[in-house]
Amino acid sequence: MIKQEEMETLRELIKEVDTAMLTTVTEEGLVSRPMKTQEVEFDGDLWFFTKKETNKYEEIKHDQDVNVAYAGKSYVSVRGRAEIVEDLDKKKELWSKAYETIMQTSYDDPNVVLIKVKAESAEYWETGNFTKKIAFLYKRMTGQSAKSTDGNETVELNH
Amino acid sequence: MIKQEEMETLRELIKEVDTAMLTTVTEEGLVSRPMKTQEVEFDGDLWFFTKKETNKYEEIKHDQDVNVAYAGKSYVSVRGRAEIVEDLDKKKELWSKAYETIMQTSYDDPNVVLIKVKAESAEYWETGNFTKKIAFLYKRMTGQSAKSTDGNETVELNH
Repeated sequence: MIKQEEMETLRELIKEVDTAMLTTVTEEGLVSRPMKTQEVEFDGDLWFFTKKETNKYEEIKHDQDVNVAYAGKSYVSVRGRAEIVEDLDKKKELWSKAYETIMQTSYDDPNVVLIKVKAESAEYWETGNFTKKIAFLYKRMTGQSAKSTDGNETVELNH
Repeated sequence: MIKQEEMETLRELIKEVDTAMLTTVTEEGLVSRPMKTQEVEFDGDLWFFTKKETNKYEEIKHDQDVNVAYAGKSYVSVRGRAEIVEDLDKKKELWSKAYETIMQTSYDDPNVVLIKVKAESAEYWETGNFTKKIAFLYKRMTGQSAKSTDGNETVELNH
C-alpha cells in the first residue's frame, strides 16, 4: 500500500542524487557499485542501464534481491527485486546522450539492457538528527510477515 | 594478499566519508542504512557501534555477509563479513562523545555492541570517469574462485 505523501518524499530525496549504490548478491557476499540514476520520476520502479557482459547482469540473473542506496543530503535505502528488461522501446525511451558517451554504444545494441528494480520497501533518514522514517511501498505477498513490516511508518534512532 | 598501495588509497577515500551505507541480508531482501564511520585508520577492518535491540544486530547474527558503501568524492564498495564484538576495552577505545549524544548511553551499557566488518574485497571508482579500480584485500578460502577474484586489479567501465 503506497502512501502518496511518502512516495512524494522519496521522489524528492532520490531526485537530488545523481548516483546510487546498487548492491547485489554474489556467491562470495554482497557487492555494490555506483550507478547513474535515471532522470525519470520515481513511481516505485528504478531503472538503470547496463551491459550483458557485466558481473551485475550475471548476479541479478542468479539472485534478484538488490538494494539501492542514495547518499546525499539525506539517505535512502530501497529494498527491491531486480529484473533484466530488454524491451527496445523502453531502452529508447530511457536512453540519453550521456549513456552514449559512457557506454560507447547505442540503445539498440543487444548487449545493452535495462535493470528494473521494483521497490518493495524504502526507508529514509534525514541528515542531522539521523531520525529514521520508513515508507513501505509494497509488501511482498510471501505469507511471511516480518515484524518490521507491521507498521506503515516508524521512527527510531539509527542505532 | 594486500597491496600496500591499494590499502593506502582505500584508507584515503574512506577517510573523507563520515557516513557509510551498511547493507545486510534480511529474510525479505537487502536493506541498508547510514552508519557513522569510526575515526580510525582503515587496516582491513571497519567498526561501527550499534545496539542489541536493532534490526541490524539480528540480521548480522543470522547472516554475516555485508557490504559497506562509501559515496563521496569517490565511491567505495567493501564486501565483508560482520561480527558482533562486545569487548569492553574495544568499546571504550572506540567510543566518543558523539556516540554518547546520538545513542544516549555509555560504552559500558551491555546493549551497546560493536559491529566489526572484516573486509574481504574492496573496489573503488573515481568520480568523473567512472573508471573502476579493484583492490582485493582478502580472498576467502572457500575453494570457489569467482572470475572476478582472479586479477589483483582490473579497470573497466561501470556498465
